[in-house]
Amino acid sequence: MGSVWGNKLKVSIFGESHGEGIGVVIDNLPPGIKINMDYINKQLSRRAPGKSPLSTSRREGDSVKILSGVFKGYTTGAPLCGIIYNEDQKSKDYSQLKDNMRPGHSDYPAWAKYAGFNDYRGGGHFSGRLTAPLLFAGALAMHILETYRDIFIASHIKSISHIEDDGIKLIDYDAAHFNYLKDMEFPVLSEEKGELMKAEILKAKESGDSLGGTVGTIITNIPAGYGDPFFNTVESKLSHMIFSIPGIKGIEFGAGFNITKMRGSSANDTYIIKDGKISTKTNNNGGIIGGITNGMPVVFTTAVKPTSSIALPQETVNIDKMEETVLQINGRHDPCIVPRVIPVIEGASALVILDLLMERDGEKLFRQELS
Amino acid sequence: MGSVWGNKLKVSIFGESHGEGIGVVIDNLPPGIKINMDYINKQLSRRAPGKSPLSTSRREGDSVKILSGVFKGYTTGAPLCGIIYNEDQKSKDYSQLKDNMRPGHSDYPAWAKYAGFNDYRGGGHFSGRLTAPLLFAGALAMHILETYRDIFIASHIKSISHIEDDGIKLIDYDAAHFNYLKDMEFPVLSEEKGELMKAEILKAKESGDSLGGTVGTIITNIPAGYGDPFFNTVESKLSHMIFSIPGIKGIEFGAGFNITKMRGSSANDTYIIKDGKISTKTNNNGGIIGGITNGMPVVFTTAVKPTSSIALPQETVNIDKMEETVLQINGRHDPCIVPRVIPVIEGASALVILDLLMERDGEKLFRQELS
Amino acid sequence: MGSVWGNKLKVSIFGESHGEGIGVVIDNLPPGIKINMDYINKQLSRRAPGKSPLSTSRREGDSVKILSGVFKGYTTGAPLCGIIYNEDQKSKDYSQLKDNMRPGHSDYPAWAKYAGFNDYRGGGHFSGRLTAPLLFAGALAMHILETYRDIFIASHIKSISHIEDDGIKLIDYDAAHFNYLKDMEFPVLSEEKGELMKAEILKAKESGDSLGGTVGTIITNIPAGYGDPFFNTVESKLSHMIFSIPGIKGIEFGAGFNITKMRGSSANDTYIIKDGKISTKTNNNGGIIGGITNGMPVVFTTAVKPTSSIALPQETVNIDKMEETVLQINGRHDPCIVPRVIPVIEGASALVILDLLMERDGEKLFRQELS
Amino acid sequence: MGSVWGNKLKVSIFGESHGEGIGVVIDNLPPGIKINMDYINKQLSRRAPGKSPLSTSRREGDSVKILSGVFKGYTTGAPLCGIIYNEDQKSKDYSQLKDNMRPGHSDYPAWAKYAGFNDYRGGGHFSGRLTAPLLFAGALAMHILETYRDIFIASHIKSISHIEDDGIKLIDYDAAHFNYLKDMEFPVLSEEKGELMKAEILKAKESGDSLGGTVGTIITNIPAGYGDPFFNTVESKLSHMIFSIPGIKGIEFGAGFNITKMRGSSANDTYIIKDGKISTKTNNNGGIIGGITNGMPVVFTTAVKPTSSIALPQETVNIDKMEETVLQINGRHDPCIVPRVIPVIEGASALVILDLLMERDGEKLFRQELS
Repeated sequence: MGSVWGNKLKVSIFGESHGEGIGVVIDNLPPGIKINMDYINKQLSRRAPGKSPLSTSRREGDSVKILSGVFKGYTTGAPLCGIIYNEDQKSKDYSQLKDNMRPGHSDYPAWAKYAGFNDYRGGGHFSGRLTAPLLFAGALAMHILETYRDIFIASHIKSISHIEDDGIKLIDYDAAHFNYLKDMEFPVLSEEKGELMKAEILKAKESGDSLGGTVGTIITNIPAGYGDPFFNTVESKLSHMIFSIPGIKGIEFGAGFNITKMRGSSANDTYIIKDGKISTKTNNNGGIIGGITNGMPVVFTTAVKPTSSIALPQETVNIDKMEETVLQINGRHDPCIVPRVIPVIEGASALVILDLLMERDGEKLFRQELS
Repeated sequence: MGSVWGNKLKVSIFGESHGEGIGVVIDNLPPGIKINMDYINKQLSRRAPGKSPLSTSRREGDSVKILSGVFKGYTTGAPLCGIIYNEDQKSKDYSQLKDNMRPGHSDYPAWAKYAGFNDYRGGGHFSGRLTAPLLFAGALAMHILETYRDIFIASHIKSISHIEDDGIKLIDYDAAHFNYLKDMEFPVLSEEKGELMKAEILKAKESGDSLGGTVGTIITNIPAGYGDPFFNTVESKLSHMIFSIPGIKGIEFGAGFNITKMRGSSANDTYIIKDGKISTKTNNNGGIIGGITNGMPVVFTTAVKPTSSIALPQETVNIDKMEETVLQINGRHDPCIVPRVIPVIEGASALVILDLLMERDGEKLFRQELS
Repeated sequence: MGSVWGNKLKVSIFGESHGEGIGVVIDNLPPGIKINMDYINKQLSRRAPGKSPLSTSRREGDSVKILSGVFKGYTTGAPLCGIIYNEDQKSKDYSQLKDNMRPGHSDYPAWAKYAGFNDYRGGGHFSGRLTAPLLFAGALAMHILETYRDIFIASHIKSISHIEDDGIKLIDYDAAHFNYLKDMEFPVLSEEKGELMKAEILKAKESGDSLGGTVGTIITNIPAGYGDPFFNTVESKLSHMIFSIPGIKGIEFGAGFNITKMRGSSANDTYIIKDGKISTKTNNNGGIIGGITNGMPVVFTTAVKPTSSIALPQETVNIDKMEETVLQINGRHDPCIVPRVIPVIEGASALVILDLLMERDGEKLFRQELS
Repeated sequence: MGSVWGNKLKVSIFGESHGEGIGVVIDNLPPGIKINMDYINKQLSRRAPGKSPLSTSRREGDSVKILSGVFKGYTTGAPLCGIIYNEDQKSKDYSQLKDNMRPGHSDYPAWAKYAGFNDYRGGGHFSGRLTAPLLFAGALAMHILETYRDIFIASHIKSISHIEDDGIKLIDYDAAHFNYLKDMEFPVLSEEKGELMKAEILKAKESGDSLGGTVGTIITNIPAGYGDPFFNTVESKLSHMIFSIPGIKGIEFGAGFNITKMRGSSANDTYIIKDGKISTKTNNNGGIIGGITNGMPVVFTTAVKPTSSIALPQETVNIDKMEETVLQINGRHDPCIVPRVIPVIEGASALVILDLLMERDGEKLFRQELS
C-alpha cells in the first residue's frame, strides 16, 4: 500500500519536487541483468521538459545516480536505488501556494490528508517530477522485457482535444513494429493529424490555457496464460499502475467503451489457427479475456486531462483565511502534458508486465547463471 | 496477489461454477458489527437471475451460509467465511466445452494458464457466478459504510448499446439521494430511455445475440483526504477491483474521456466555500485529485461488454484437434448483463472504500466497544 | 496480515472451535498437482486426538471436505478451499468461560482485542482445533515438496519437561532418512528416553497438571541460495509461521542458544568439498547463513509450553464482575500437546519452504504441462 | 517480501557496504511527527564502532541525510528516505574474498542465490552496516512510541558466552524504568557480571577469536488486545523482524525454552486485579498469549552468534577453483557484536510495535491535526 508497488517486483518511490531529491528503490530484480544506461537515458529524455515550444521551458536535472544494486555494470539482485538530486532549488516564495488551493491540483486533498504538514512547494510529493524515477524503473523493466522476452511496448498520441490520430491495427504485425514511435518527439501515426494537434496546443498555450488528450498503447508478444481471474486481472494490474500517473482520468482495454455499442456476435474475438498457432480475427478484448492474456497484443487507451497549471487567473479558496480568492500561477507550464507522459505510461506498463511474468515464472527466465 | 484482495481488509474468493460451492473469506472486519441479513439478501437478489425476460431464466441458489466470524449476530473480528453451495449440478456433458474454446470467454487463456487442468464446466472459477460471494462481501461493506459513516453508493444504467440515460448531476444533492435506484429492477433516471433500452435488449435476445452498456456510479460523503498519490490512488484502488468483475473493459472517473476534450480552464474544478465548507463548482475530476478524495462525490463510469454467451453459432478452434470448428452454445443466457452487474459494482466499490478508510483510520471509527 | 499468510502462496484460515466449521483457502497452488488424500489423511490422523492415554479422549471429526480448486483429482490452479465441519456441537453452557478468563489461554487478550464480541466457546478462533486446516494445507505442501523436489521434513520429540531425547546428527544422511519418525506415534530417537517421557506425562496427567517440551525439526535437500537477507530471511519466514501455532514460545536454528557459548572459530561452519559439491563440516548455523540456505539441512528447535488447560483449580479474574475468583475447567484435556503438535510444525514448515521456492522459481518447477 | 517490510508502515532497505551508500525508505509515517535528530543520533552512536577496545576500531560515517518526507522539521506523511553515504571506500583488493568463502558469512549462500553477481566487497548488501539505516528507522519509531504512547523499550546484555547477567523482574515496574540502560555503553544489571563479560571478550580478542551472547529485551505499556491469532501473532511479527538482523540464531518469549520444563499449573500466569486493573502474578508468557498482548510487558531473549569474522586462519573452499584452501581475514573486527546489536534490536522492535498499533488504530493516535 502507499508508496510501495508490486507483487514479486517491489517498487518504492520517494521524494519531493523541491526537496533534496527524488528516487526509487526496486527490489527483486533478477541478478545478472546488464544495465544499459543509454537505453534508460533515452527514455528519460523523452520525458524531459524544455525540448520544444510544446512543453514547459523549465529544465530539470533528470540524471539518475544509481546508489546500490549494481556492481560491475550488472544487477546484483539486491535492491537497486536510483536517485535524481534536485538542483538549483531557488528559495522562491511559496507562501501563495501554501494557502491558495490551485484548482485541479492535489493541494487541497493533500492538505486534508496530511493535516497541512505536506511539502506544498511545487506540488511536493505530488509533483509530476515524481514520474522521472518511476520512468527510470520502468525503462529498466522495458529493457529487460525487450532483451529477455522479446516483448515490446509502444504508444502514440491517439488524440489531442478533438483531433484524433489514425487508429492502430491490432492484428498482423511484428513485435517491434511500432518501436519507431519511440524515436518521434510527437509520436503519431498520421503526420498530418500531428500537425493539427501541435497547432491546437500552441493556440491553447497562447491563450494561457491547456489541453488534454488520449494515449494509445500496445504491448506485443506476451504469451497466453498470464494474469488472474480474481483479483489480479491484467486490466486490474495495468489500471492500478496507470492511475498512479498524475493526470490520468480513464482507461479502456481493446475496443473499450466502444465495445458497449457492439453486439456479442461482433464483440467476441473469433479464434482461428494461423501459422499453426491460435490467434483471433479481431482484438476487441485487447489481448485480455477473463483477466488473462490470450496471446494477442495487449492494447489500451488512457485519458490524460488538460494540464492543471494554467496562466489564466482562477477563482479558488484561501484555506487559511477560509475565504474565496483569485489565484494567478506564474511560471512556465506545459500547455499539454500528453507527449511527455507517453514514456511514463510505457515504463509503468513495463513494470506491470515484468511483475506479471515474474509472479508466475519467478526469476528463471530472466536471470543469467554463471557459465 | 491472486485471489486475495485488500490492504487492511482481506477478501479471499474461491469456488467454481459447477463444483461443490463458491465462497469468500473476509478478514479484519471490525468486531461488533451487527449483521443485517435482510440488507445483504436484498443486494444478492438484485444480482440473482431469473427475475425477468431481460435476464437468463436459469435459477441459482444464492443463499449464503455464514460459517465463521459471526457470533450472536455480530461480527467477532475473526475471519468471516460465507459459502453458497452449488445445488443441483446436473452431470451434463461438458466435453464440447472442454475442447472448443468459446469466443469472448476465458476458456482459451485459462487453458493456457492452467495447462489444461482448469475446471471448464460452466466457466469454472471464471464463472460470473463468482460475483455472488463478492457481492455478499460487498453488501456487508456497503452496510457498514451506510451505518457507521453515512456513505452511500448508487448506480444507474448509463447506456445500453447506443441508448443513453439522462446524466447525473454531480453537485448539490444529499448523500442518500440516489438510494432509490437500488429499489429499481432496471435502474435508470429517465423512465422513457429505460423502456427503449429494454426493447433493444429483447430485440438482441430474439436474434440470439447480446448487448453491452455502461454503468454510472456515485459514492457520496467520503471526506477529503483519503487515498495516496503513489501507488494507491483512489482511482487505482477502484479500477483494480472493478476490473476483477468479469466483462468490464473500461473505467473513467468524473468527466473521464470527455475531460480530454476540455481546456484546463474549464476542466479544473473551481473551489468555493459553501455552508462554511470547501466545495467545488464542478466535479470533472470525480471527487479525486492527485489520487486523493477532495470531499466531492466520487463518480465513475464502467464499460460492460456484451455477454459473451450467445445463441448464434460461432467459429472457433478445437484445442485438442487444433482445428477450426463451429460452436453453438445451448442454454439460457443473459442477453445483457448490465442490470445484474450493477449491485456487484456497488458492492465491490464498497469494499474498496471500506478498505481505504480503514487503512488510514484503523478499526476505531467502525468498531463497537463494550459499554 | 491477519489470517492470510504467504508471499506467492496465499493461505487464508478461518473458523471457530464451536461454530459451523473450520477451514482454509490456499491460493496459487500450481495446476496439475495430483491430490493424495491418503497422504494428507495420514498427517491429519497424527494430529487427531483420542488415540492414546497421552492425549485427550475427545474425538474430533477431522475429515476435510475439498470445496474447490480440485478437478478430476488434480489441482486446477484456482483457490483450493478445504473445510472441516464441526459435528455434534453440544449446546453446552459456556457462560462460565465467558467471564472467567482461563490463565494461559487467549481469553483475556481476545476479550480486549475484540471488545468482547469474540466467540469464546472452546477458545473460538483461537482453538488448537484451527491447526487442523493449517495441517491440511501443510500436508498438501509437504507432499508437493517430496514429490517434485525430493525435500523431506521430519521431527522428533527433543524433550519432555526435563527429559531429553538423543540428538540428531546434522551431517551425512539421506534426504528421507528421518522419514520413519512420521510413522511413530511418539517419535523419539531413543526408545528408552521415550518411555521415560511417557511416564512423566502420565504422572502429570494424574495430578491434573500438564507438561511441555521441545520439538526438533530437520528439512533436507533445500538447495543453496533460497531466502533473503532483509526481511525474508529463512529464519524470519519459518519463525513467523511457527509462532502462529498456539503454545509455541521459542525457536532456535542450528545450535541455537548454545551457539552463544561457542567461540567464532568453532561456531563457524567450515566449508569442505564432498562428492564434488560444497558442504560444511558442522551445521551450527542450521543450514541458513545471512538469511539464505547454504544447502545443508535446515534444522530448528521449537519450545512448546505445557497445555494451558489443566484440571487443577486456578485463581483468576471474572471480567464481568471485575473480581478475583477460582476457576475449575472440566473436560478432557491433553496432558501434553507435544506429540500432536509435531505434524503441525512439519506441515507449517512445508508451507514456508514451498512459498520460499515458488517466490524465486515461480510455478515452473512444480507444474505439470500437458504433454 | 524481500527488502520491504511492514503491513501499515512500509520499510524499504537498500545499499551495500562498499557501494555509494546505504539507506532506508519509510512509508506511511503519520504526518506532523516532530523529528528529533538528537534522539536518533544518540541511538545511532550506540551502534557505531570504534568507541572501545570491545568493538572494532574501524570508523564508519553513520551520519544520516534525510532526503524526503520531512518539511520544516516535521514528517509530511510522504515517504521518508534517509541515506548514509559511504565515505572513503578504498579501492582495496577484494579478489581474495570474491572466491574464498568466509565460514559463518553469507558469501557462499549469496553466491548461490545471486549466481555470482552479488557485490562481495565487505559483505555487500549482507554487511552488518545495513543495520545502520534499519536503526535509523527504528529510532524514529521508538521516539514516536515514547512520545505518543508512552511505550518504552529497553535491553540488557543477558549473557556473554557462559557468563550471565542478573535477571529482569518482569512484574511491578514503571514504563521507563529500564531506560537508564540506554545510557550505558555496556548495559548490564550487575556491574560485577559486566566486568567478567568484558574480560572474557578481551581474552577472546587476544586469541584472534570472537564471542556471542544473548540480549534480554523488555517493552512496556503496550495495551492488551494487539496482535492476531493467525498469522500475525506478536511473536511472529517480532521474530520475523529480529531474525532479519545478521547473526541472530534464536528467540524466546517470556520464560521461553524454560517454560517447557514447567508444569501447566506454574506456567499459566494467574490473573489478578491490581489498582483496579487486570494484571498477572507472573509473566511466563512474556506479555503475549494466543498471539495477542495481554497488557503485561512484552519480554524476549535473543541469541547472538559469535562474530563470524575472526583473525584466526580458517579452512574453507575457493569457489572458482572448487578446491579447499585456508583463509586468513585481515582487518579490524568486533570480538563480540552483542553490545552494538542492542540498539538495533530495540529499534527493530519499535518498528514492529508501531506497525502493530497502526494496523489496528490507523494513524489517528499518532498524527497531529492542525489546530
